Amino acid sequence: MKDLAAVPAAYLEALKARDLDAIVDLYAEDAIVEDPVGSDAHEGIAAIREFYKGATGMSIEGELQGQVRVASNEVAFAFRITMADVGMTIDVIDTFKFNDAGKIILMRAFWGPENVTS
Amino acid sequence: MKDLAAVPAAYLEALKARDLDAIVDLYAEDAIVEDPVGSDAHEGIAAIREFYKGATGMSIEGELQGQVRVASNEVAFAFRITMADVGMTIDVIDTFKFNDAGKIILMRAFWGPENVTS
Repeated sequence: MKDLAAVPAAYLEALKARDLDAIVDLYAEDAIVEDPVGSDAHEGIAAIREFYKGATGMSIEGELQGQVRVASNEVAFAFRITMADVGMTIDVIDTFKFNDAGKIILMRAFWGPENVTS
Repeated sequence: MKDLAAVPAAYLEALKARDLDAIVDLYAEDAIVEDPVGSDAHEGIAAIREFYKGATGMSIEGELQGQVRVASNEVAFAFRITMADVGMTIDVIDTFKFNDAGKIILMRAFWGPENVTS
């Protein structure tokens, strides 16, 4: 049984390391990424890889805020993203839903203009 | 247009005040509450009122942790619940989805055994 509570830190570490393969490896083939919530979703691993190409093209540091919440096969966690290159921070809450293999099948990122500072 | 970012504080205030009517008034008639995520949902306002009767029967204080994240017609927020009567705290992340009238149509509470201290 995968330790779901450890996945958010691994995710933020991979983002910081700009390790596209490590990020994509967290996802199932048929995963869906909605970032931010309310925007058009990225469906399937190819689209998700393309989406993260953008993120790994810049310097991103993510710091967890408080405990990772683990509920059944889902987690939620609060964090602050700092993009030093553009002098911007975003406070985000992500939710991950996992399949039986421990891969993310649904990622939803909650943030909006009110959560961005520059 | 309702200020969605203000709803979490109003929700926690109503919980603290044990104001069942104020809590239920935040919800739409056909709302769904899943607390914790992965458990059987409470569907419809009558079931939701019944669910919160339990919560308002005890002393509950909720303290927001960090910013409320607002994304489209949804919010996510981290908070700590303290139940003084039973000497227990729970770190939770809730997500609320709103309808056009500004009422909650879906509430999901992310927390599990790892988030409970006593």
